[in-house]
Amino acid sequence: MGLVVQKYGGTSVGDAERIRAVASHVAKTRAAGNEVVVVVSAMGKFTDDLIKLADQVSPTRPPRELDMLLTAGERISMALVSMALADQGVQSASFTGSQAGIITDTDHTRAKILEMRPERIREAIDAGMVPVVAGFQGVSTDHDITTLGRGGSDVTAVALAAALGADVCEIYTDVTGVYTADPRVVPKAHQLDKISFDEMMEMAATGGRVLMLRSVEFARRHGVPLHVRSSFTWEPGTWIVEEDPTMEEAVVTAITDDTSEAKITVGGVPDKPGIAAKLFRALANEGINVDMIVQNTGANGLTDISFTVALTDLESATDVCEKVKNVIGAASVATDNNIGRVSIVGAGMKSSAGVTALMFETLSNNGINIEMISTSSIRISCVLRADKVGDAVRFLHTAFGLDAN
Amino acid sequence: MGLVVQKYGGTSVGDAERIRAVASHVAKTRAAGNEVVVVVSAMGKFTDDLIKLADQVSPTRPPRELDMLLTAGERISMALVSMALADQGVQSASFTGSQAGIITDTDHTRAKILEMRPERIREAIDAGMVPVVAGFQGVSTDHDITTLGRGGSDVTAVALAAALGADVCEIYTDVTGVYTADPRVVPKAHQLDKISFDEMMEMAATGGRVLMLRSVEFARRHGVPLHVRSSFTWEPGTWIVEEDPTMEEAVVTAITDDTSEAKITVGGVPDKPGIAAKLFRALANEGINVDMIVQNTGANGLTDISFTVALTDLESATDVCEKVKNVIGAASVATDNNIGRVSIVGAGMKSSAGVTALMFETLSNNGINIEMISTSSIRISCVLRADKVGDAVRFLHTAFGLDAN
Repeated sequence: MGLVVQKYGGTSVGDAERIRAVASHVAKTRAAGNEVVVVVSAMGKFTDDLIKLADQVSPTRPPRELDMLLTAGERISMALVSMALADQGVQSASFTGSQAGIITDTDHTRAKILEMRPERIREAIDAGMVPVVAGFQGVSTDHDITTLGRGGSDVTAVALAAALGADVCEIYTDVTGVYTADPRVVPKAHQLDKISFDEMMEMAATGGRVLMLRSVEFARRHGVPLHVRSSFTWEPGTWIVEEDPTMEEAVVTAITDDTSEAKITVGGVPDKPGIAAKLFRALANEGINVDMIVQNTGANGLTDISFTVALTDLESATDVCEKVKNVIGAASVATDNNIGRVSIVGAGMKSSAGVTALMFETLSNNGINIEMISTSSIRISCVLRADKVGDAVRFLHTAFGLDAN
Repeated sequence: MGLVVQKYGGTSVGDAERIRAVASHVAKTRAAGNEVVVVVSAMGKFTDDLIKLADQVSPTRPPRELDMLLTAGERISMALVSMALADQGVQSASFTGSQAGIITDTDHTRAKILEMRPERIREAIDAGMVPVVAGFQGVSTDHDITTLGRGGSDVTAVALAAALGADVCEIYTDVTGVYTADPRVVPKAHQLDKISFDEMMEMAATGGRVLMLRSVEFARRHGVPLHVRSSFTWEPGTWIVEEDPTMEEAVVTAITDDTSEAKITVGGVPDKPGIAAKLFRALANEGINVDMIVQNTGANGLTDISFTVALTDLESATDVCEKVKNVIGAASVATDNNIGRVSIVGAGMKSSAGVTALMFETLSNNGINIEMISTSSIRISCVLRADKVGDAVRFLHTAFGLDAN
């Protein structure tokens, strides 16, 4: 019994029937003696519909106005959830991001939370009510409406849970939890009962689709236990918690895959200090996130720098590289949009030898060539040809003993 | 040249094409040297769709949550209009009712404006921008989102025009202006170039459908000239202004009709002081608006009190009357939902004899029986059988010389 923040995604509030099911589940959670705060996304594809409407109206879309437009979606779903709760006899009130005290910077369409002032939410809880809060939105220090970018509703839920000292932040979605691999790729994948923040962050960063890196990071920083579960089965899902030092850890917990990136290679770069810094500063200035970076120095004082970026950033990243090429005296810029990445993630990897070797052997024994490698203490990622990714994940899932019986 | 507040109703922003047409008209108004503030309603039938959605979700609809839901509509239209303006090279920013400083009481779904603090709108104008403001909505003294009830977007526009000292408040709609009678009833009706606030108020109160009484009242009180015109033809429409004492006025300016009311007669009421007050206080306490009231005292110290109420209030008004009947010692309560009202309106009536006589003669010569009469200094209304209303309006339109050539 405690304070539970429940976040419901778009499919969980996708129609009237789903909204009534949500209200019924909230009522049950209350009846079990908990205080509940609800965070909602916009209904189903409503946000996409609004973007289509904007496309019809104008090719010019000032970010401030886009935020104003998109925040209509949560306004609708939260009012409807609150009505459905009233109908179940649960006293509730809906709150916009602004009313909930979610103060952000002024970076429209991808604002960052600067401060939480959830006084009205706290008052509502103390008055015995269930606050229903709009996910994804806040109010800027300039008093304008902002949105938090992709996965923003999860961030809202985690930030509220942290600010209110909640016992758990439940993320309700259309999957039943976190799996050892994407079940669409690996039929033998099975659901995990529990996973550490560190592992979940590595999964999110390398293609795990259940949670965005940002909300897991936020939860870890504030020590908010997450519980990812289904609003269709209402069964317990996967807990994401602090690593438990008393438990023996699986060497490898999950395999992730990601085919949303492309590779850029800047070739013939003089191997001098500060050259790489110039390149990646120029990319950062354009807001381009760089993922894996590999540098190979040859014998002739020249080096090749390869890195991956999101496919959606490939064009602008290539432009930046072409400009920087002349400044740094590089020879060439080559792009490759046919790559994929496979990663193995596991907290037990830290203390276990031979993991890297088993990964490389498994891939090579199956005729899969590795093009780039990067590692952290609990993750190893390999870049492969995109069409080899599915096979690679299945072979590794078997090799590391993750297949369900 | 001056400051123009332009209000666009639901049909005027009904789809992407209409929104672009609105932006283009705003750009033209700006190019002619005016400062412009735009007020928008929700797109077309969007608000109706939201209510249908609420119907599907829950029979219980707390007014606070209904307001939260319905205000999503203007948020969408105002963001889209602002984007379309950006595309025309017009700098603009959208503002919610709250951001525009529209402070209301806490009476959800029909809030009244308590105070206007349009500092952000003023700043935007001074910065050379076109503010696009959500109609119909405000923020209560409790910091909750409120709506202003039916015709609320017009009220927003007039209140902003008053607070900003605008030169005119233009109300764009799907008709071209105010007519001498409803053109669907009277084919020979013609559009008026100009009409006084007092006449427009009488028209609005007796069935004129173009403007709601409340916004005309507000405009008169603050001396804001209104201009009702079409967002389809963009032609000049009808100006609603202070009466001009130098002009000779038409005796009768317009004929209105209204079949949205019903009649209640409380019979055999003791003719003593305070009896009528008890009845109408009881009705007021239930929020029922009473329109025409007629009392006929007989010889036996008993009296009949007849009055009209909106058809939608008939049931609850009848309940109130049945309860009060016993308290005041009345004999009976009878209802009649087959009535209609015809009114002639004209500022010149004040100084012109024989208007009443001509009205009654016209009706009686055409075999139309008058059941109730009420008058103001510039209006005469008669209650008739509902099925006689169309004929009555046409005969009166001819008799008072209003037919177009």
